[in-house]
Amino acid sequence: MTAYSKISAQYLLPATNGDIKTMTFLQEVVNILLAYIVESFDRSTKVIDFHYPNELLQSNNWELSDEPETLDDILLSCRATLKYAIKTAHPRYFNQLSTGLDMVGLAADWLTSTANTNMFTYEVAPVFVLLEYVTLKKMREMIGWPERRGDGIFSPGGAISNMYAMLLARFKMFPEVKEKGMSSVPRLAAFTSEHSHFSIKKGAAALGIGTESVILIKADERGKMIPSDLERRLVEAKQKGFVPFFVSATAGTTVYGAFDPLIAIADICKKHGVWMHVDGAWGGSLLMSRKHRWKLNGVERADSVTWNPHKMMSVPLQCSALLVKEEGLMQKCNQMQACYLFQQDKHYDLSYDTGDKALQCGRHVDIFKLWLMWRAKGTIGFEAQIDKCLELSEYLYNKIKDREGYQMVFDGKPQHTNVCFWYLPPGIRYLEDKEEKMRRLHKVAPVIKARMMEYGTTMVSYQPQGDKVNFFRMVISNPAATFEDIDFLIEEIERLGQDL
Amino acid sequence: MTAYSKISAQYLLPATNGDIKTMTFLQEVVNILLAYIVESFDRSTKVIDFHYPNELLQSNNWELSDEPETLDDILLSCRATLKYAIKTAHPRYFNQLSTGLDMVGLAADWLTSTANTNMFTYEVAPVFVLLEYVTLKKMREMIGWPERRGDGIFSPGGAISNMYAMLLARFKMFPEVKEKGMSSVPRLAAFTSEHSHFSIKKGAAALGIGTESVILIKADERGKMIPSDLERRLVEAKQKGFVPFFVSATAGTTVYGAFDPLIAIADICKKHGVWMHVDGAWGGSLLMSRKHRWKLNGVERADSVTWNPHKMMSVPLQCSALLVKEEGLMQKCNQMQACYLFQQDKHYDLSYDTGDKALQCGRHVDIFKLWLMWRAKGTIGFEAQIDKCLELSEYLYNKIKDREGYQMVFDGKPQHTNVCFWYLPPGIRYLEDKEEKMRRLHKVAPVIKARMMEYGTTMVSYQPQGDKVNFFRMVISNPAATFEDIDFLIEEIERLGQDL
Repeated sequence: MTAYSKISAQYLLPATNGDIKTMTFLQEVVNILLAYIVESFDRSTKVIDFHYPNELLQSNNWELSDEPETLDDILLSCRATLKYAIKTAHPRYFNQLSTGLDMVGLAADWLTSTANTNMFTYEVAPVFVLLEYVTLKKMREMIGWPERRGDGIFSPGGAISNMYAMLLARFKMFPEVKEKGMSSVPRLAAFTSEHSHFSIKKGAAALGIGTESVILIKADERGKMIPSDLERRLVEAKQKGFVPFFVSATAGTTVYGAFDPLIAIADICKKHGVWMHVDGAWGGSLLMSRKHRWKLNGVERADSVTWNPHKMMSVPLQCSALLVKEEGLMQKCNQMQACYLFQQDKHYDLSYDTGDKALQCGRHVDIFKLWLMWRAKGTIGFEAQIDKCLELSEYLYNKIKDREGYQMVFDGKPQHTNVCFWYLPPGIRYLEDKEEKMRRLHKVAPVIKARMMEYGTTMVSYQPQGDKVNFFRMVISNPAATFEDIDFLIEEIERLGQDL
Repeated sequence: MTAYSKISAQYLLPATNGDIKTMTFLQEVVNILLAYIVESFDRSTKVIDFHYPNELLQSNNWELSDEPETLDDILLSCRATLKYAIKTAHPRYFNQLSTGLDMVGLAADWLTSTANTNMFTYEVAPVFVLLEYVTLKKMREMIGWPERRGDGIFSPGGAISNMYAMLLARFKMFPEVKEKGMSSVPRLAAFTSEHSHFSIKKGAAALGIGTESVILIKADERGKMIPSDLERRLVEAKQKGFVPFFVSATAGTTVYGAFDPLIAIADICKKHGVWMHVDGAWGGSLLMSRKHRWKLNGVERADSVTWNPHKMMSVPLQCSALLVKEEGLMQKCNQMQACYLFQQDKHYDLSYDTGDKALQCGRHVDIFKLWLMWRAKGTIGFEAQIDKCLELSEYLYNKIKDREGYQMVFDGKPQHTNVCFWYLPPGIRYLEDKEEKMRRLHKVAPVIKARMMEYGTTMVSYQPQGDKVNFFRMVISNPAATFEDIDFLIEEIERLGQDL
C-alpha cells in the first residue's frame, strides 16, 4: 500500500514497464469491489449510509484540481464513493424497478468496459454486433413475431426506446417528415393511458408533436387502459381534425404494475390504422415466464415493443431494447449515410454495420451483459428468477391485505410485482374526520421513508397518484430478496411509523 | 478450473454460502481481463484477429438456449469474446476518435458497474450526482462562463448532446412548442457547416424540424465555416420566411479536425438573435491545453457546448457532456414532474434531483470515470496527454507532406490531430489520365484498410468527402501511441499498398 502514496497514474500502462504496477493497482481496486459486493449481500449491513447533500460535499475532498493525486488518493476515493453509495445489490433494496446485482452480469460489464468499444460498426465491435443480432432475434421469438423477423436496437433506456417507437410510427405514416419536418404533416395525436410512463409525453415534446397531442385514456381502478375510452377518444380526435398515429399500451405500469388489455387495443389500432406500441419496459420480461406471459397476450400484434432487461431481469444498468416488427424501417427513418463511418466499399457484409439505424452516433455496448447472463441462466433461469419475484409480491399482498393498519390502493392480487398500499399508524387509523385523516396520511410515507434512509435498513418508494394521497409502492425485482425480507419490510414500516 | 465445469451461475451470490464461489469466479474473470489488458498494450500482438461475419458466427456457439451453461462455458465465452474483439487500447489502433484505454478510467468503470445505480435522483446516486455537479462546474470554468454558472448534463453521446442543444434553442425561442408542438411555431432554420457532424441533421429529423431546414454553410479549403456565407444564408432564410433559431459551429470537425471561427460566428449569432451552439465533441478537450485552447477562442460566447471526454481525453465510453449557459432552461424544457420519482416532500435538498432535466428517465452513470481520471491526472495530466497527441499528428504531417507518394487533402499544419492524406502507390503515382488516376486512387484506401485488418497490424479510417476520392483520415487520441507507431503506420501503408 505504501507504494501508492508515492506514485501517480502516469506510472501505469501505457508507461514503459507499467505492466506490474497496472496489474497490482487494478487488483487493489478489484479487492475493494469484491469486499463491497460481499458486504452488499449481507443483511446486517446498511442499504445506505445516508448523508444530506451539504454533509456529503463536506465529508471528503471531491474537488478537481490542476495537479494529479497519488494512486493512494485514487483508492481512497474509490472507497469513499462506495461508502456513501446505495447498495443496490442489498436484499432489502426495493426502491426502484431496477434492483439487485447479478454476478455474471457484473462480470460481463467489467469485460465490456475493458473492451471499450462502440456499437456503430462491425469493424470496431464484431462480436458485440453479432451478439446483438442473436439476442434481438431471440427476443423477437419470445414476442412471437413470425419467423423471429423484424428489427431492433439497444438504446440508452426505456424513455429513448419509447421515443424511437414514436419516431418510427410518425415516419411510417408520413415519411416526408424526415426532410420536411412537422410543417408537412397534419396535426398528429398519440394515445396512451393516464397511468402510462411520462416518457411518452417527454418524447412528444422533443419530437415536436407537443404534449397536448398526447391524449390520456382513462384507466380502470386497477390501472389498465379502458379500450372503449381509447376508441371514443380516437374517433373524437379524428373529428377534431387530428390524425391518430400512435397508441402506446403499457405492459406493466410504473406505479400499479398494470397490464393494458393488448388484444382489445390491437383490434382498435388495426381498425383505425394506427401504429401499436407496447411499452413493456417494466412488464416485458414476463414474456420469459410460462406462468405469467399470458398477461402480455396480444403483444405479437404490436408494431413495436420496449423491453428493459435492466429492470425485471436484473441485467446491470443500462440495458433497454426496442423491438420493431417491420424490417428496414429504422434504417430508412434514421439513416444519414455518413461516409466517414459507413463506407460502402468495405470488405465485409455491410448489413452488420447497424449504426445508422440509431439516433445516436456512438452507442454504448449494452448487449454483452444480457447475452452472457442468458447463457449462464438459460431462459429457464430468468423464468425462475421472475416467477420468484412475483411469488414474493403475492406473499406481501396476502400478508397485508387484511392486516390491521393496512389498506390496499387497489383491490385484487397484483399482476406484476407492484404492491401499492397505505400504512395507517394507530394515531391515524381511527380518525373519523376523513379530510384530516387524508391530510395526515399523506405525510406518513415520506416520514417513514426518510427514517428508513437515515437508519439505512431498507428502501421502498412512495408517491401520490391522482387524488390518492402518498402510498407505498413496493416492487420486487431483486433476486436476492426472500420471504424474510418481506417480513422485515413490514416490521420496519410499523416500527418506524407507529408514532406518526 | 474443474469446479466451474460442474456448477452454473445459480451457485453464486445471492445463493447461500455463495461468497467464496462468487469471489473466485469474479477473480477468474479479472485474471482474463488483466491478461487481455497487458496483451493489448503489446505491439507484438494483433490489433484485431479479423473474421468475416459468417466465419465469426460459426467460430463459436453464440446461440441462446433454454438451459443454463456451466461457469466454465461462461469463462470460455469471455475468452472468445476478447479473442475476436478489437484491442482498442493497442498503441496502433487509430480507427476512431475514441481510442486507447485509461487504467484509472477503467477502474472507475468497474466501480460504476459494481455500484449499478441510476442518475435520476440524489436518493439513489448521492455521490455520483454530487460528482456530476462538481465536474460540470469545472467544465464550465474551462469554457469561461462567468462564475462557472450555467447548467449541463452527461448524455449518451455527442449526437444526443447536440440534439439537446437544438431542443433547448427551440424551446428558448418558442416555449409553447413543448405543449403545442411544431404546428404552433413558424418554419425554423438551423445552420451548420457542410463539414459538420451528421447528428445535426439527425437531430433535426427527430425533432420534427426536418433535414431540409438544416442549411449547410460553405466551408473553406481547411474545412472551417465561412462566416460571410453564414450571414448571407441567415438573411436569405429570413427573407424566405424561415425563422433562424440555431447555429451549430464545430470545434474539431470529424474528418478534417477543423475549428470554425467562433468569434465571427458569435458576432453573427448575436446580431441576429440566434442560439449559438458549439459542437466540441471532438475538439472541446483542447480547452484543457494552454497551448491549443486558442483554437476555441469565442466558445465562452456560446449558449451551449457539446464536449465528449470519451474522445480526446480517453475516458472510457461513454462520456459526453452538454454544457448550457442559462441556468434552469433544461429543467423547464424537459421536465414532466413524474410524481413517483421526483416527490416534492423528500427530506433533502431537491435541487440535487436532476433527473427531470433529462430526455431520458433512467440515465447511466458516466461521471465517475471522468471524475476519477481528473483526480488522478489533474488538469495538467490531461493537458500533457492532449499536447502529446497533437505533437504526434504534427510529426506525421511533417513526415508525409513532402514524401514521395503522398498528397495532403488540405494544405497546412493540422489544427487538431486529424491528418488527411492520399497514399498513391507507384502504379498510380505517374498516371496522366486524371480520371483513371482518381478512379484507381479511390480504391486504394479500402484495399489497404482491408489488408490492415486481415493482418491485424494497425487500423486507420478512410472516407471520400465531397468530390474527393477515398483518403486516409489519421486521428490520434490514443495516449499509448508514440513516434515509432507513426513511423510504423507509414511503413505499413506502403508495405500493404505498393502493389496497387
